Amino acid sequence: MIVASVIGATGYTGAVLTDILAMHPEVQLGFLTSASFAGKSVAEVFPHLRVDREYVGYSLEALSDSDVAFVCYPHAQAHVAVAELVDSGCRVVDLSADFRLKDPAAYPAWYGFDHPRPDLVEEAVFGLPEHYRSSISQARLVANPGCFPTGMLLGTLPVAERIDDRGVIVDSKSGVSGAGREPTPKTHFCAVFDNFKSYSEVGHRHTPEMVQEMTLAAGTTLPVSFTPHLLPVDRGILSSIYFWPEGGVGTQDEWLSLYAERYRGEPFVEVVETVPSLQDVQGTNYCRVSIRVDPAAGVVKVFTAIDNLVKGASGQAVQNMNIMFGLDEQAGLGRKV
Amino acid sequence: MIVASVIGATGYTGAVLTDILAMHPEVQLGFLTSASFAGKSVAEVFPHLRVDREYVGYSLEALSDSDVAFVCYPHAQAHVAVAELVDSGCRVVDLSADFRLKDPAAYPAWYGFDHPRPDLVEEAVFGLPEHYRSSISQARLVANPGCFPTGMLLGTLPVAERIDDRGVIVDSKSGVSGAGREPTPKTHFCAVFDNFKSYSEVGHRHTPEMVQEMTLAAGTTLPVSFTPHLLPVDRGILSSIYFWPEGGVGTQDEWLSLYAERYRGEPFVEVVETVPSLQDVQGTNYCRVSIRVDPAAGVVKVFTAIDNLVKGASGQAVQNMNIMFGLDEQAGLGRKV
Amino acid sequence: MIVASVIGATGYTGAVLTDILAMHPEVQLGFLTSASFAGKSVAEVFPHLRVDREYVGYSLEALSDSDVAFVCYPHAQAHVAVAELVDSGCRVVDLSADFRLKDPAAYPAWYGFDHPRPDLVEEAVFGLPEHYRSSISQARLVANPGCFPTGMLLGTLPVAERIDDRGVIVDSKSGVSGAGREPTPKTHFCAVFDNFKSYSEVGHRHTPEMVQEMTLAAGTTLPVSFTPHLLPVDRGILSSIYFWPEGGVGTQDEWLSLYAERYRGEPFVEVVETVPSLQDVQGTNYCRVSIRVDPAAGVVKVFTAIDNLVKGASGQAVQNMNIMFGLDEQAGLGRKV
Amino acid sequence: MIVASVIGATGYTGAVLTDILAMHPEVQLGFLTSASFAGKSVAEVFPHLRVDREYVGYSLEALSDSDVAFVCYPHAQAHVAVAELVDSGCRVVDLSADFRLKDPAAYPAWYGFDHPRPDLVEEAVFGLPEHYRSSISQARLVANPGCFPTGMLLGTLPVAERIDDRGVIVDSKSGVSGAGREPTPKTHFCAVFDNFKSYSEVGHRHTPEMVQEMTLAAGTTLPVSFTPHLLPVDRGILSSIYFWPEGGVGTQDEWLSLYAERYRGEPFVEVVETVPSLQDVQGTNYCRVSIRVDPAAGVVKVFTAIDNLVKGASGQAVQNMNIMFGLDEQAGLGRKV
Repeated sequence: MIVASVIGATGYTGAVLTDILAMHPEVQLGFLTSASFAGKSVAEVFPHLRVDREYVGYSLEALSDSDVAFVCYPHAQAHVAVAELVDSGCRVVDLSADFRLKDPAAYPAWYGFDHPRPDLVEEAVFGLPEHYRSSISQARLVANPGCFPTGMLLGTLPVAERIDDRGVIVDSKSGVSGAGREPTPKTHFCAVFDNFKSYSEVGHRHTPEMVQEMTLAAGTTLPVSFTPHLLPVDRGILSSIYFWPEGGVGTQDEWLSLYAERYRGEPFVEVVETVPSLQDVQGTNYCRVSIRVDPAAGVVKVFTAIDNLVKGASGQAVQNMNIMFGLDEQAGLGRKV
Repeated sequence: MIVASVIGATGYTGAVLTDILAMHPEVQLGFLTSASFAGKSVAEVFPHLRVDREYVGYSLEALSDSDVAFVCYPHAQAHVAVAELVDSGCRVVDLSADFRLKDPAAYPAWYGFDHPRPDLVEEAVFGLPEHYRSSISQARLVANPGCFPTGMLLGTLPVAERIDDRGVIVDSKSGVSGAGREPTPKTHFCAVFDNFKSYSEVGHRHTPEMVQEMTLAAGTTLPVSFTPHLLPVDRGILSSIYFWPEGGVGTQDEWLSLYAERYRGEPFVEVVETVPSLQDVQGTNYCRVSIRVDPAAGVVKVFTAIDNLVKGASGQAVQNMNIMFGLDEQAGLGRKV
Repeated sequence: MIVASVIGATGYTGAVLTDILAMHPEVQLGFLTSASFAGKSVAEVFPHLRVDREYVGYSLEALSDSDVAFVCYPHAQAHVAVAELVDSGCRVVDLSADFRLKDPAAYPAWYGFDHPRPDLVEEAVFGLPEHYRSSISQARLVANPGCFPTGMLLGTLPVAERIDDRGVIVDSKSGVSGAGREPTPKTHFCAVFDNFKSYSEVGHRHTPEMVQEMTLAAGTTLPVSFTPHLLPVDRGILSSIYFWPEGGVGTQDEWLSLYAERYRGEPFVEVVETVPSLQDVQGTNYCRVSIRVDPAAGVVKVFTAIDNLVKGASGQAVQNMNIMFGLDEQAGLGRKV
Repeated sequence: MIVASVIGATGYTGAVLTDILAMHPEVQLGFLTSASFAGKSVAEVFPHLRVDREYVGYSLEALSDSDVAFVCYPHAQAHVAVAELVDSGCRVVDLSADFRLKDPAAYPAWYGFDHPRPDLVEEAVFGLPEHYRSSISQARLVANPGCFPTGMLLGTLPVAERIDDRGVIVDSKSGVSGAGREPTPKTHFCAVFDNFKSYSEVGHRHTPEMVQEMTLAAGTTLPVSFTPHLLPVDRGILSSIYFWPEGGVGTQDEWLSLYAERYRGEPFVEVVETVPSLQDVQGTNYCRVSIRVDPAAGVVKVFTAIDNLVKGASGQAVQNMNIMFGLDEQAGLGRKV
């Protein structure tokens, strides 16, 4: 049994991690830390969870028995805890963005802080199992990808070399849980319900992750024009991805075969003919992908759907843990959460 | 033209008042005051409103040209401004609860403050036009009823004398805008969406308004057991009201006739055979009422629907203003808001 | 391993049954029958289900290897298949209403048909495990309770003898899946979304189930005035139940203790202090119950929440199967569906 | 006063037309025809409408007193009635697609029928007032644009000559009312709620309208790759439009100025800095437009929002009528519907 703790466990990703880990057949739940809710029970904070535990304050010493820690702090606030945990010998899956970008210069530009640990930035593995499985298995530190990059990259990495130099248009629509549990005017029910709009139309912080991985895969810089939108639903991201392929638009079957081939044997990627919907993946760790070809415009359209809190965050984090510790990659991930 | 100002104009009721008053044919919009948004335009705060105005800070002096002021402050915070406005000669419609209860002793019990102006408490008229029209026409100060009492009382006052001493069960379901614009964990989209629950199951602050008016109408104390619930919609209240009538349960037609008779000529109460739904009244100042009879259980069921921000607040406030100033009672209230 | 088939498997209850049974550790999935979708795969009809099966037409012969059949036909259409299956030696859980009412005369009155099998009506066990567990364990035919009666009865049976002769007011709010998968004007998205209303305000067909069981429990006829409402959500029923207790209203703690005592050891009933919400139970087989006391009105308020498709239908059906076959009562019911 | 009738008045567009025309200061409501609901009152079919009228069967003779008829029949079924009405001397606004495409050969290809009246196809004016106002004022027959083309074209026509030969990517998200009032599995509440997906990803029937108008404006064939998605809301379309401009990406201010200049004086197009949301335009005849520039990818992003039933259908139809009859273009369009 692996002892797993969750650091900053009272956000939405923490809640889903708590749910998964509490029922994981190979995991013993370590500590659930929370600054604001220490001393409260899980049931008080999340009445829908049936996990008999209390939150505690963070303490490096208390965590010394944990084999792995999931860090769910906000961006720019996670790296301190991540670093001290890794230094202390605990393996870490960091759900923040603090170790996702390989270029240390990207942190001041995109996240407003100088990264104090370029060594760990270099060491960290980008936790997209479908592309970095073998590095993940050896990693001390996994940087769990952002929710938007997860859905986008699973839809585009297989064809990175086929995309022409215009790059890709990524039009993503996300449920509100992606904005976090903190009440704000933007997440007030009346602001979202019966509404729809874009946000962060240029320069959303998930863009550099997408560019970094697409450029690595294509061997050349590929522009990504990314636009998120806020859906009046709780959970799920649907991304509609548009690109002009080099060498002709081909047929839907050709593209479906290419994707099916690429993802053969992948436990959590489903290449399907019917376009995916949020309901197909909500509560699960699946990413569902389909493709359409628009010959009149010369455009290929890729549609991917994930649950932003599962494959887009906590489920993928557990998938990474399973790989890190040599467990069945699907262990604990067969239930809806 | 009447000069009308809104005090505390950047909550939901303030927004609806701004919308109604800006298009009201007999009104010249005075000031829209806001502590937090002074200096900002209406469009910045409410992009859906097309009213070319800026919010200003509150100042009694500036309001001296207003014929009427609508006070939209929270409970227990409104009475100071209300009192100084009335004292200064401005007629006031107070949308808070600060002058609704006739018994001064009720304020410490239900709202946690000793009322400094029992004289105005006595003078204030409870602003339910269907029952106090003539007093409203003379009033310096109208206490606009709460949203739940409005829907409940329009459904029960006509039969107050027929209800047996068990009183009434009032099961109300409200949209989220009733909870106000302040972001809180309870109004976070993810807490309300795809959810439903009761709240303040005993002792909700709107209960004493209901009891006060029912007791006045019945001539004897009538218990009211009121339970609000939170609907995953923006606007609207549907109340399901249950009582055992004295002298037999009668027929649906008898009750419908009784209500139709009572509300004949009322511009904003619709007695209908089909049970009302929120969609029937959203955006309007109508209260729609229907009745069902359950002979097996001996119970009469009354269903009423209102828009909590219109007939339940700002629309009724303008209806009161129209009556106070001798205008057409429907003026400005023919549009959806 | 028990071989379990689903008859009429392409409605919402059939989909949930398929999901539960496919992962049930003690079950081998027999046949999924469907008149309209025979020859199609589960994935074609329900893309969110990951069960590799095809629907087949109904045939008694093919079902001869099934130990148990779940019949998901509409009311008044199920009894023929139920009867022939039982006669053939297959144990049956009937999700329709065709065997729930003990009085054969009730069928023409409430469901419009003369029941051809009064012998089976008498034999059938009302499948509410918390009250009929031992009879269920021996039953050839279990009449799975209606969704509304399940939530209502779990909230009132423990106190049936304490309710005064006025009986109970039951104000229930249900998600749309309760209306079935057939598209109708009433279930069109635009008719339900951002809306709320009552329906079948008098004489809803679930009423006689409630009266039957309450009267059995109380030892005297107890009126039930039941009013369902349609919530703009997919799944879940919240019932707000009001009654005047004999012998005084008591305290919340007394009532909570009484319920907790009654349900001690029950795997799927949770008596809690915080009032339940739909989110607490969606996807699960739990019924969550809480109580409030309104001393001013002398009323006791009971709130219960269930998922109408799980504890209100398919989950309870599997719970009944587990009891019938001597399995762990919770087997297969630990996952969200 | 103009006498205006609605042919096929019991769909969603018919309901909105009924609402607008009943309150239009220059209109006398003629007939509301309906095959299915003849003899029923408006209130029976649409309880939220307060228009005291009955539906009647269609009869050319009865319509001889109408100055204008709005035809709300489905595609491929409207042209017969449209033609006989125009031939009889009644001016017509056709809300179907039957006269939108200028190339008669397009009808068999896109709508499956040979057009019997190429003369009227040639004569009909495409009813986008912002681009064809003067032709509309003289027209006997106006082909009211599709909902998606309206939002898309208002966002792209001003820059048609600046778009490079890749053309435009149009990612549109529509409320469910766009699918019509007929209940289908796709519009069942449970299929749409808490869900999101694309549909008709290639070859949606609104595409040729977009290509036709863009090509006319650009003077060269411009590809349009259009992808609609279904939002879990009732009303509204938000379109996110992407293109690579010739001659460099420019700045947001330059583009905003260009659009503001182009739409100066337009009563129903609002060029704004803040990106539009559905709530900004629901119930209104406004199209709200904003622009963002993504210099890293070289992409210009245009966002437009309309209410699909108002500016996308019935409101624009009345705007066209106002122009046809020399009325104030805004008459009757100042209320939310």
